Amino acid sequence: MIEVKEALEIVAANSNAMPMQKIKVHKALGHVVAETIYSPISMPPFRQSAMDGYAFTHSIRHQYDIVGISQAGDHSNIKLKQNEAIRIFTGAYVPDDADTVVMQEHVMANTDSILIAQMPEKNTNVRPKGEQIGKGDVVFEPNTLLTPAAIGFLACLGITEIEVYKKPKVGILVTGNELTEPGKKLKKGKIFESNSIMIQAALETIGIKKTKVYRVKDNLKATKNALKSILKKNDIVLISGGISVGDYDFVKEELLKNGVEELFYKINQKPGKPMFFGSKKETLVFALPGNPASSLTNFYIYVLPAVKNKMGFSEIHKPKVVRKLNAEIKNNTGKTLFLKAKYDETDVTILEGQSSAMLNSFAIANGLVIVEQDAENIKNGQLVTILPID
Amino acid sequence: MIEVKEALEIVAANSNAMPMQKIKVHKALGHVVAETIYSPISMPPFRQSAMDGYAFTHSIRHQYDIVGISQAGDHSNIKLKQNEAIRIFTGAYVPDDADTVVMQEHVMANTDSILIAQMPEKNTNVRPKGEQIGKGDVVFEPNTLLTPAAIGFLACLGITEIEVYKKPKVGILVTGNELTEPGKKLKKGKIFESNSIMIQAALETIGIKKTKVYRVKDNLKATKNALKSILKKNDIVLISGGISVGDYDFVKEELLKNGVEELFYKINQKPGKPMFFGSKKETLVFALPGNPASSLTNFYIYVLPAVKNKMGFSEIHKPKVVRKLNAEIKNNTGKTLFLKAKYDETDVTILEGQSSAMLNSFAIANGLVIVEQDAENIKNGQLVTILPID
Repeated sequence: MIEVKEALEIVAANSNAMPMQKIKVHKALGHVVAETIYSPISMPPFRQSAMDGYAFTHSIRHQYDIVGISQAGDHSNIKLKQNEAIRIFTGAYVPDDADTVVMQEHVMANTDSILIAQMPEKNTNVRPKGEQIGKGDVVFEPNTLLTPAAIGFLACLGITEIEVYKKPKVGILVTGNELTEPGKKLKKGKIFESNSIMIQAALETIGIKKTKVYRVKDNLKATKNALKSILKKNDIVLISGGISVGDYDFVKEELLKNGVEELFYKINQKPGKPMFFGSKKETLVFALPGNPASSLTNFYIYVLPAVKNKMGFSEIHKPKVVRKLNAEIKNNTGKTLFLKAKYDETDVTILEGQSSAMLNSFAIANGLVIVEQDAENIKNGQLVTILPID
Repeated sequence: MIEVKEALEIVAANSNAMPMQKIKVHKALGHVVAETIYSPISMPPFRQSAMDGYAFTHSIRHQYDIVGISQAGDHSNIKLKQNEAIRIFTGAYVPDDADTVVMQEHVMANTDSILIAQMPEKNTNVRPKGEQIGKGDVVFEPNTLLTPAAIGFLACLGITEIEVYKKPKVGILVTGNELTEPGKKLKKGKIFESNSIMIQAALETIGIKKTKVYRVKDNLKATKNALKSILKKNDIVLISGGISVGDYDFVKEELLKNGVEELFYKINQKPGKPMFFGSKKETLVFALPGNPASSLTNFYIYVLPAVKNKMGFSEIHKPKVVRKLNAEIKNNTGKTLFLKAKYDETDVTILEGQSSAMLNSFAIANGLVIVEQDAENIKNGQLVTILPID
């Protein structure tokens, strides 16, 4: 049995980034940039008006004749004399002869001429060419997460394809004679199998959508065949159930026989103690606890960071949340606790029903309060650290 | 022009929940429950062992003969005499005659009998039937967000279909002669159109995946036809560009002609001032500013809450984040400022490039620092409020 800190380190040390793949920018949300991206253009590509108004050459003069117009999308490089201006709109090309744009609210205008009532400084309201980025400049370094804004930025530079890290293929192996698929009739002694659909949903939150589920009964031959296949086809293998000291658990033995190296088994935590972690080359194997709440806890604590490492994330963890505890916590277990909790802008409430079998409190939780193994008593009003799961 | 607070209230007051739809639970991630869900079974459905060990009737006796076995999935209601126990595994059916399970680590066992070295209290390690939820009890009230844990909970109760609020259909209308689709050749005076792909990505983060984009040039007829069609087919209409005081903007006029009621136009904020909001029956119309960063800011401030209201969310806003500012902010504009920022566990940094045209700082931001219109000076080290956008 190892401590949480060590378990986290071992998982991180074994989760390497996936190979690269080329992807269309409009499908790249949530992917991570795999190679430095350079801008193919200057942005803006020309001197651009930042306002609706009039472009002219700055001088002591206040009156100008209107000799033309520049709308967004135009590119007529109108020649201007000292006493001439043009009507111009936001985003439009500023003629080479003009250096300043006065906003229309600061002008008295008739059809042919304007009188500038409030004179702007020279260069006002003209965005220089390349103000945002120059041609050939770095757009994104590797390991940048592609947010909506990042995708917008790539698009505004005309970039339509980029290299990202592949998303890992994840396979889920479900074992257990007691498990019945939801929708079927529940026979006596059986329960509905919910871990696979829950973990599929949790993977979907990070954009991993096609997770295959392999279901086997608790017998050696079925487990053997399924393991061989799942190990071959996936980058991350999640096993639900079948790893405990129970006499009917063949999974660990079979993993080792299939060339999976054990990296740890059992963690000094509650819930989620009986977890196996191993690897076979770059493929990671997590055998999660069978109890639903333990399984999901360990998904958030261990699997999600591993997925993020594989996807090339530079920031594996969201900034932790610190809140005032509005109850007391006693921890005489000597273990690290992960308590399902609901936090708001100031406080955090530990939810009822922390049993490892229970999902109802997890369903309304937005975070896990982390209670260190040596924190024996946390008092009402004390600050605690929360891992957000929303 | 109205204030931010008022604008938020008007948007909220006009964003009503969508009609209901029946959906499969495994496709329900991110949807919101629309009617009270009751449990069709008790969970656990029978008295369940919480441990691998031995089940027996609690007494002063320490030695028991092993007369059977109960594995997970079995349902043999073995009769037990006072001196008899059965081998039992986690999740397995506890025979009616037994009231207690001793964990195997606390027992000395041979093939036929056990000696309990550490006697548990009566009822230990037996999960009562219905401990988690009883048959007919409420699983979720309406307006519960379907998280991975919530989906797991439904599945473990055997529920495969539920009523949720429909997701709104969103259409994006892009106007502007200056706009070129990324991938095409950029002619002089033109820029690449990035708002639609960016807003599509932002909608995707909340699970709205099929957003249709309508592109029109800045001319009356094209705008007219596109508006008619987009208003008919969508629950939320987002218009990018075309709403300013520029002479070439027909959009607002056409909206009004098409029966859209103006609810506000222009907000006292920076960036994002020139926004129009209106409605036609239940359809909401946001004409976003054309500048990319302003457009995305207003998406997060106004559109996303409206989408969440339509989807039935009970919590429209994530808990706000408060962090120590590691710079100084001067606000002599009299406007509310939304500053692109990056926060960590203690501090927040205001990013360079706050111009409304610039997306590069937005691309690496994880929040918007909200500077109230009357906050003229915020000092280094002062706490500020952040709207998280990650």
